[in-house]
Amino acid sequence: MIIDVHGHYTTAPPPLQAFRDAQLAGQPARLAAISDDELRASVEGKQLAIMDRRGVDVTIFSPKASAMEHHVPDPAIAEGWARASNDLVYRVCTLFPGRFAPVAQLPQTPAGNVTGVVAELRRTVGELGFVGVNLNPDPSGTWAGQPLTDAAWFGLYEVLEELDVPAMVHVSTACNPNFHTLGAHYLNADTSVFCQLLEGDLFARFPRLRFVIPHGGGAVPFHWGRYRGLSMRNGWQEPAALLANVFFDTCVYHQAGIDLMLEVLPVDNVVFASEMLGAVRGADPATGVDWDDTLTYVRAAGLAPEAFDQVVSGNAQRLYPGLSRWLEVG
Amino acid sequence: MIIDVHGHYTTAPPPLQAFRDAQLAGQPARLAAISDDELRASVEGKQLAIMDRRGVDVTIFSPKASAMEHHVPDPAIAEGWARASNDLVYRVCTLFPGRFAPVAQLPQTPAGNVTGVVAELRRTVGELGFVGVNLNPDPSGTWAGQPLTDAAWFGLYEVLEELDVPAMVHVSTACNPNFHTLGAHYLNADTSVFCQLLEGDLFARFPRLRFVIPHGGGAVPFHWGRYRGLSMRNGWQEPAALLANVFFDTCVYHQAGIDLMLEVLPVDNVVFASEMLGAVRGADPATGVDWDDTLTYVRAAGLAPEAFDQVVSGNAQRLYPGLSRWLEVG
Repeated sequence: MIIDVHGHYTTAPPPLQAFRDAQLAGQPARLAAISDDELRASVEGKQLAIMDRRGVDVTIFSPKASAMEHHVPDPAIAEGWARASNDLVYRVCTLFPGRFAPVAQLPQTPAGNVTGVVAELRRTVGELGFVGVNLNPDPSGTWAGQPLTDAAWFGLYEVLEELDVPAMVHVSTACNPNFHTLGAHYLNADTSVFCQLLEGDLFARFPRLRFVIPHGGGAVPFHWGRYRGLSMRNGWQEPAALLANVFFDTCVYHQAGIDLMLEVLPVDNVVFASEMLGAVRGADPATGVDWDDTLTYVRAAGLAPEAFDQVVSGNAQRLYPGLSRWLEVG
Repeated sequence: MIIDVHGHYTTAPPPLQAFRDAQLAGQPARLAAISDDELRASVEGKQLAIMDRRGVDVTIFSPKASAMEHHVPDPAIAEGWARASNDLVYRVCTLFPGRFAPVAQLPQTPAGNVTGVVAELRRTVGELGFVGVNLNPDPSGTWAGQPLTDAAWFGLYEVLEELDVPAMVHVSTACNPNFHTLGAHYLNADTSVFCQLLEGDLFARFPRLRFVIPHGGGAVPFHWGRYRGLSMRNGWQEPAALLANVFFDTCVYHQAGIDLMLEVLPVDNVVFASEMLGAVRGADPATGVDWDDTLTYVRAAGLAPEAFDQVVSGNAQRLYPGLSRWLEVG
């Protein structure tokens, strides 16, 4: 079974964006009725067709990351938006048994909104069986907040440990013209968070907390020697010491990048993902391979069969224990 | 001849920091006398010994990057600090004929200080023969300014073209607790600037402008497929189109990273550098190789002899035409 741990619902029917537009315009926002047929149609020729074509069995599915927009400060707006987005993702997952498992958007705000975040975490994970969450390390969109090692985040981590779900550390739209959201901000966040974790000792306090760093970990595997050297010089823990709690997805869109990840990182820490439909669409004209068809790159990386299974399936099942109920449905 | 294009004077004698401390304390700052012997001693057992041990002939040498601190808003302070730092670097270069060539710190401020920047550029490059400059794409330290493609930078680019010197795009200390200066801010800047250039058309306007992106280009080579895909999706130029003007140094501190760079980028765009003495010091206990001994990694990368010469020497001589006068001295 092949499991993609990083897919976004970037193809939701128009009423979802209309709801958001009303929210941001300060109008009363109510999500217009969307039929099951509309929801099916929104993924059938898209994510689901691509999964079938590539041989992906299951996608761990979350709301569109760039649309989370946690920089909007009003907690009620963040909560309404997270609920509406999560409920649609949940419906898609139930409409295609065995093909999708839901991951929740959290109603973060620049000030934190820990109460609202924990409430939505309990509703989605605790009540509805969501298998994980997307955690934005920069809700302000301008890096105005504190590192993930700051005590301000601990209330959330306690509940993540209690519920035994991992968090994918995933920013939303950048609010700074220096950072293209998909071409810089996402990768910078991945890099920055890894270094925050390296400097701190978060997992001494939260040993069961698990983070998935997307997009191959930003610059991290490419600079693995830099992090080893910085750790020695600064008396930080070894990068390898993080690997009980930190995992990297394979959203790296060429063969050389995937090869590097699998050379540098232990096979238990690389988790298959494509972020489909995400930042890049279409195919490399030189090879005909879709940019985000990372399964093709992982297949071509020359892994032994057991290692391949670990990357495309075993690691996800270990990291996301809640996944089993979504697999059994199918 | 082996040329390292990225070395910093991180070992300057104490009076330089005393000058800076006085500046920042609002006191009259005058650089105390430093003898030639003191200057020699500051590099003889250090940068120069390491160059000799590794077989590096020449280092392109600039003031300590994290100490540039362009976030201090007063132009007079920035100008005094750049002059003092550049003058010491110049003296070191003249004391060891044929071993060092100077690159200038610019007196940037968050507001730009274009007049002061251009004056120091003309003094260092035009009068003293500096071979290049370090250009901080984030003088605020908080990314409060505009991307490098903004017209605010054009006055500087005109003079860089006129003087025919490249700029290494190098940030200084981060002023945000989310970004470790050496472990996140440097790499994020490299990544962000590349994407700014990809989105824009700066080199259509400044065809002779040349940028060196340090630290292997941050996340860029590791995500080369992502940039190709984003360019296609967004109608930007191809990443390859930048390669007439954009070059990447080899400050990547493990073999796998150097191998990836040389697999992904044309050999004409990879320029040998170690950033010695820089972010990492000491050796990998697993191999005994110094983290920043990137020459060992480049040697082991399996390049053909002509390609190797290009990376360690030819590219630098092409990029830095002013270098010849510093080589001939020796």
